[in-house]
Amino acid sequence: MLLVRKKLEEFFMEDWGDYDLTTESIFSESDQGTFTILAKQDGVFAGSIIIEEGYKMLQKDCEITCFKQDGNLVKKGEIIAEVSGRLQSLLTGERVILNLIQRMSGIATITREAVSKVEGSQTRICDTRKTTPGLRIFEKYAVRCGGGFNHRNGLYDSVLIKDNHIEASGSITNAIQKVKMRVGHTVKIEVEIESEQQLHEAIRNHADIIMFDNLPPAEIKKWVKYVPDHIVTEASGGITLDRLKDYAETGIQYISLGYLTHSAPSLDFSMNVKQGSKGGILV
Amino acid sequence: MLLVRKKLEEFFMEDWGDYDLTTESIFSESDQGTFTILAKQDGVFAGSIIIEEGYKMLQKDCEITCFKQDGNLVKKGEIIAEVSGRLQSLLTGERVILNLIQRMSGIATITREAVSKVEGSQTRICDTRKTTPGLRIFEKYAVRCGGGFNHRNGLYDSVLIKDNHIEASGSITNAIQKVKMRVGHTVKIEVEIESEQQLHEAIRNHADIIMFDNLPPAEIKKWVKYVPDHIVTEASGGITLDRLKDYAETGIQYISLGYLTHSAPSLDFSMNVKQGSKGGILV
Amino acid sequence: MLLVRKKLEEFFMEDWGDYDLTTESIFSESDQGTFTILAKQDGVFAGSIIIEEGYKMLQKDCEITCFKQDGNLVKKGEIIAEVSGRLQSLLTGERVILNLIQRMSGIATITREAVSKVEGSQTRICDTRKTTPGLRIFEKYAVRCGGGFNHRNGLYDSVLIKDNHIEASGSITNAIQKVKMRVGHTVKIEVEIESEQQLHEAIRNHADIIMFDNLPPAEIKKWVKYVPDHIVTEASGGITLDRLKDYAETGIQYISLGYLTHSAPSLDFSMNVKQGSKGGILV
Amino acid sequence: MLLVRKKLEEFFMEDWGDYDLTTESIFSESDQGTFTILAKQDGVFAGSIIIEEGYKMLQKDCEITCFKQDGNLVKKGEIIAEVSGRLQSLLTGERVILNLIQRMSGIATITREAVSKVEGSQTRICDTRKTTPGLRIFEKYAVRCGGGFNHRNGLYDSVLIKDNHIEASGSITNAIQKVKMRVGHTVKIEVEIESEQQLHEAIRNHADIIMFDNLPPAEIKKWVKYVPDHIVTEASGGITLDRLKDYAETGIQYISLGYLTHSAPSLDFSMNVKQGSKGGILV
Amino acid sequence: MLLVRKKLEEFFMEDWGDYDLTTESIFSESDQGTFTILAKQDGVFAGSIIIEEGYKMLQKDCEITCFKQDGNLVKKGEIIAEVSGRLQSLLTGERVILNLIQRMSGIATITREAVSKVEGSQTRICDTRKTTPGLRIFEKYAVRCGGGFNHRNGLYDSVLIKDNHIEASGSITNAIQKVKMRVGHTVKIEVEIESEQQLHEAIRNHADIIMFDNLPPAEIKKWVKYVPDHIVTEASGGITLDRLKDYAETGIQYISLGYLTHSAPSLDFSMNVKQGSKGGILV
Amino acid sequence: MLLVRKKLEEFFMEDWGDYDLTTESIFSESDQGTFTILAKQDGVFAGSIIIEEGYKMLQKDCEITCFKQDGNLVKKGEIIAEVSGRLQSLLTGERVILNLIQRMSGIATITREAVSKVEGSQTRICDTRKTTPGLRIFEKYAVRCGGGFNHRNGLYDSVLIKDNHIEASGSITNAIQKVKMRVGHTVKIEVEIESEQQLHEAIRNHADIIMFDNLPPAEIKKWVKYVPDHIVTEASGGITLDRLKDYAETGIQYISLGYLTHSAPSLDFSMNVKQGSKGGILV
Repeated sequence: MLLVRKKLEEFFMEDWGDYDLTTESIFSESDQGTFTILAKQDGVFAGSIIIEEGYKMLQKDCEITCFKQDGNLVKKGEIIAEVSGRLQSLLTGERVILNLIQRMSGIATITREAVSKVEGSQTRICDTRKTTPGLRIFEKYAVRCGGGFNHRNGLYDSVLIKDNHIEASGSITNAIQKVKMRVGHTVKIEVEIESEQQLHEAIRNHADIIMFDNLPPAEIKKWVKYVPDHIVTEASGGITLDRLKDYAETGIQYISLGYLTHSAPSLDFSMNVKQGSKGGILV
Repeated sequence: MLLVRKKLEEFFMEDWGDYDLTTESIFSESDQGTFTILAKQDGVFAGSIIIEEGYKMLQKDCEITCFKQDGNLVKKGEIIAEVSGRLQSLLTGERVILNLIQRMSGIATITREAVSKVEGSQTRICDTRKTTPGLRIFEKYAVRCGGGFNHRNGLYDSVLIKDNHIEASGSITNAIQKVKMRVGHTVKIEVEIESEQQLHEAIRNHADIIMFDNLPPAEIKKWVKYVPDHIVTEASGGITLDRLKDYAETGIQYISLGYLTHSAPSLDFSMNVKQGSKGGILV
Repeated sequence: MLLVRKKLEEFFMEDWGDYDLTTESIFSESDQGTFTILAKQDGVFAGSIIIEEGYKMLQKDCEITCFKQDGNLVKKGEIIAEVSGRLQSLLTGERVILNLIQRMSGIATITREAVSKVEGSQTRICDTRKTTPGLRIFEKYAVRCGGGFNHRNGLYDSVLIKDNHIEASGSITNAIQKVKMRVGHTVKIEVEIESEQQLHEAIRNHADIIMFDNLPPAEIKKWVKYVPDHIVTEASGGITLDRLKDYAETGIQYISLGYLTHSAPSLDFSMNVKQGSKGGILV
Repeated sequence: MLLVRKKLEEFFMEDWGDYDLTTESIFSESDQGTFTILAKQDGVFAGSIIIEEGYKMLQKDCEITCFKQDGNLVKKGEIIAEVSGRLQSLLTGERVILNLIQRMSGIATITREAVSKVEGSQTRICDTRKTTPGLRIFEKYAVRCGGGFNHRNGLYDSVLIKDNHIEASGSITNAIQKVKMRVGHTVKIEVEIESEQQLHEAIRNHADIIMFDNLPPAEIKKWVKYVPDHIVTEASGGITLDRLKDYAETGIQYISLGYLTHSAPSLDFSMNVKQGSKGGILV
Repeated sequence: MLLVRKKLEEFFMEDWGDYDLTTESIFSESDQGTFTILAKQDGVFAGSIIIEEGYKMLQKDCEITCFKQDGNLVKKGEIIAEVSGRLQSLLTGERVILNLIQRMSGIATITREAVSKVEGSQTRICDTRKTTPGLRIFEKYAVRCGGGFNHRNGLYDSVLIKDNHIEASGSITNAIQKVKMRVGHTVKIEVEIESEQQLHEAIRNHADIIMFDNLPPAEIKKWVKYVPDHIVTEASGGITLDRLKDYAETGIQYISLGYLTHSAPSLDFSMNVKQGSKGGILV
Repeated sequence: MLLVRKKLEEFFMEDWGDYDLTTESIFSESDQGTFTILAKQDGVFAGSIIIEEGYKMLQKDCEITCFKQDGNLVKKGEIIAEVSGRLQSLLTGERVILNLIQRMSGIATITREAVSKVEGSQTRICDTRKTTPGLRIFEKYAVRCGGGFNHRNGLYDSVLIKDNHIEASGSITNAIQKVKMRVGHTVKIEVEIESEQQLHEAIRNHADIIMFDNLPPAEIKKWVKYVPDHIVTEASGGITLDRLKDYAETGIQYISLGYLTHSAPSLDFSMNVKQGSKGGILV
């Protein structure tokens, strides 16, 4: 929560700079109004905390009602939230808040779509570290809102031994041994494998997670059977939305998708004067 | 430049947290290597400053060669840059640097595409404030790399009188007068108009820029002729890539597009061990 | 507002360091009092936001009444504001708050004086970037309180082509062309001119603002007639208070004055125990 | 030094914001030049560290030669320093660096003037906490450059018992006793006195410093004799430059002057293309 | 207070990182509870401000009752405070708050022990700069809670001339003279002495404080008589708890002890579900 | 590394504040010297990075030679490192650097002692989150230098279900199920158990780690046999150094000890003028 506030503060200052030339010139501190936030597309909403924390930061006593919770489906034309307060606060905060919830809802929406493709299977959809720099907590949260799971948050919370690590240390065995000499028991060790031989080597060395990297479903289906129950399996690499079902049918437990965060288009919202009020001004 | 460094520092800390469990366990400080950054899609490159400042921040004496300049076209398979230094630095910095240049190059690529649609006309393509919070300087820079222009950077550097402002202050005339009472001569005043009557009111009140908001090309073409030479014209609102040519033919001077920044998909790059070296380790 | 709070926090920490040795030794947390802020000179007041935000930051529930608004004239001996709360908060915050409002009111006062010299003309007084580092938003605000206008806020919000730029790029024409190739339509372009030839060159190249740099009123008066209506004119450079009227009579639209911010003496205020209360302690 | 760099970084970012529109549009990264910093008034120079640290921060390998040291007298027309490097760095940093050294040199100059008034006596001139918020370390340094001494830096480094403290705690005796119960032996205790009775009370309670507040020289001269050698004496309050000699003749050891920092006018400097080079560009 | 809040915010973010995986998974925002903070050892409590400011930061409207004030003795099993609020806030904040009050109370406890050893004498116990980096204000405060006094807070608030300074400048006389040429009257000058000759030299040069460094009580007792009343005396260097009484009997005024802050063991506290409530959940 | 530098900068500023009154008064910028850092007790050294990064931050071109690496044993009287550079830098940085390496080496020393008690067994010693706020990365690093392992770094990198979580959610089964609904596969789930029944419940629910909380060795020995190979076991709670061997003999895999970080006494070091140089000054 503290981090969210800190970030929001930074984002507001990015957009305002010295001050809002337009709004502060036209309105006085006593002008009040009510605005609605409206979905302009169908999708999954994520960002109620942004609206609440964001507007409270601009004006402690503004009134905020969220009609949708994070993770809820929204239809084009539905009202997400209503905010009443000083016109200056409402207008000045608009762009930053919309930019954030549009991005977060875009991610939640595409995640939900991916999740629906694997419905009926045991497979879970998860994200990667391919997030927008500076926005990781927001984007990983949005993935959860869409029904997905989070892969590691950063380089600090679990081990992922990739092809470069393996090659440079000589073998999977060497790499895992080195890691186990240094890293404690609360950290999971994941290994990327590209061949059946690597798979067996990872199992022998007690990897906690095995990632099938850039492998076709047929291969995965065959190999996944060799993996003992307590080792988690994950598929990754170039898996498009329309192939998800095929991958899920292999029995893989997790599929990680970079595009959930690096290429999700925004979900469109707008802020509008509440109908029945004039010019946004309470009458 | 100072701001770029400050941001990069923040982004690295987001990804590293306490430390890179994997890389620091497997490699020692003396392991050296050479990596190449490779384009995996065709597009426009943006981000050489990220590679250079980013890796210099991790290791002062690493060697960086950029083969492409910001704004250059890249082809799938082309090498963008080559970096030599400590394996720890190379691997630890990889994700943050790729995340940034992928996002920036994605924006530059779609901008270039938009620009090419209006080629041959006098029309310029520009961005909006619909950028990712915290990344505005990077994204606005990427738009310039793609041949686009920047609309205002924030609420602080020019005035934009929108429908809500007009409605709440009674009229365009009132809104402009209020702004002119407070704002100095170095600031441009732009007004959104939706009708011919509003257009004439904006002209009468000496707006510096007139934005034709959500209007069809036919309307714009007709009205744009009323605008005196020293007032700049801009079209905005729901203008898709395939309609750009139609809008350009109206004689409008600027077209602003939110999707350049809020919905551009990443352009894919990867970091690879240089061919001829083993495991990324210099031999 | 967020920026103001952030700055106030920084300023308080500069003055307090570890803690206020004197006040925390002598008073307990339960000692209450009322203080008045008193003008000790005639002038223009600027800084009510400092008093309100500042003291609220130190003690959420203190009571503040401002008798003067920013931009109001104050007479020596007049009470500006009254603050009731914990003695510790009142005394610890005193110096920082006084230092700021004294500086801001000093600037507002000299600005008002300059503005009064050009009264009756169309000329507006504006500031420059010659502000105290770190205080620009406060000082530019104070100029507005005094009836002045703001020149650009920094290097980022408008273009100013100076003698060095002109010389190094070969000509005004070259400099303006280069700028127009890169900078968008929301940014104004101002050019410093020192000769009639430069004036015509600036006009021909569609500068938005022309600054008559270090030129005598007679010259300005003669040349200003050549400038088309939609180009703004500004005089700058060594214009003392007693020459303002002469400059205003040339028909120039703006006069920018560095000394408004770099050499304005403080306007003196003091904080005193409210009369009728004893030692500042409520009885 | 770390604090100076941190502040300079903050000041540069205040002035640049997103980027320097003018300079980056007109010049390329390879354009080089040499500029001189020139005194435009007689005075005392302070700020060589600003020039050196500031420009090194903008361009690590620029060349800086300072011809004057902090505290040196400068004459109108003298060159203070010469800087060679990228034109972009030179021009972009100009205003911030000038703003700082002008302010610091203004303070050093008025301090030197005050110091010269008491020459021949044992009296030392010192500053107060009436500094510009955020700039205290720079302004207190400038006072030292002018030959003055620093009064306490903030509320944290020595005790100053003022009239409000005395009144609210009942007596000087009470106030000092309370402070001595809490504050350690490395902190000096200063007491403001306004009457002979208070003077004796302060002496009896072993104050370390006695401040004669708003008292005429005649009174001070009479009373100062009662003060034992190991207690320091200070005069403060409304002491104008032309009265300094009278105060010094009382035998007082320190005179503290708020206007050294709150009302010193800037000392004017300019940055110019070095003669013999063309347009600032090295030939 | 601002600094305390800033630090607490930093500490919470260190412990939480992205978010509290356990607590946010298990509890919802509406789960409420009451916890008690319990002493698990006898000692001196310090840190009520941490509990109050800390939990208020996590949840504005939580209810906090502190049964002990800073500096109070606590017995094993005693309840220090009770906090009611959201279970998420209570559990997420627990570790940071306990870590801080355990450390502060550990310091207060050992300080109290040292103070009790010199009871009946005029000698005061004080700390040094041997504090934990980043925690100085908390640790120096804890020393005061234990009945000790603070030595200087840092390099900025008083002068301490040590053996290296003396040796490098040639003599105590040289060192003090140099300091007096630069440093103002609000700063105390302390000198470390190791021989009788140095003692006399320090006295002759009007040091404000004389530190007897690593000298046995017998020596100190003999020499301390030479020190005039207005010069403060301090003993330092390797003085264990069981020798304190011997040192106090020498008549020395202050004894500074590094281990108060660098080696005090934590005082143990725990946070527990309030008895009579179930699982911490209010019923 | 970036985080280490940021922290060091913060720590230096805490100690220096405005400036080092003593050192800057006595020495000039040209005074050079050589100092040695000397162990005054036997123990394990940790902190070479502090010496190197710290002094480089103060003076880029100072010369540093470390004779000991992190994790090395040091004997009383041994020289750890030698630093040559400006006397001002050497003296001003001394205290902060010593404070940090003393604390880190104290932790490394007690960790080594604990590790040696379990030598010959498979048991590993690890830390907890009971670290000094703000210093976690330094203290966890020191534990590794002493041969220990790190438990989770914070609330964000693994799940630990404690008694309060269990009680409030009804059962271990409920708690684990809730966590598994939300938390991804890269995160380990640890459960605290206090009874044999809880042990079996944790195993049945596929906990990744089982912590035997406050249980005697006899109990642990009996129960640990029920735990399948792929589940890690840990003992915690009130395990003193002299009981470590008994716990290790139970076959437990990890023992976590809070006192490694919350109550380790400092290991003493000093900085001294290099023998053969005079007053620290190079001759």
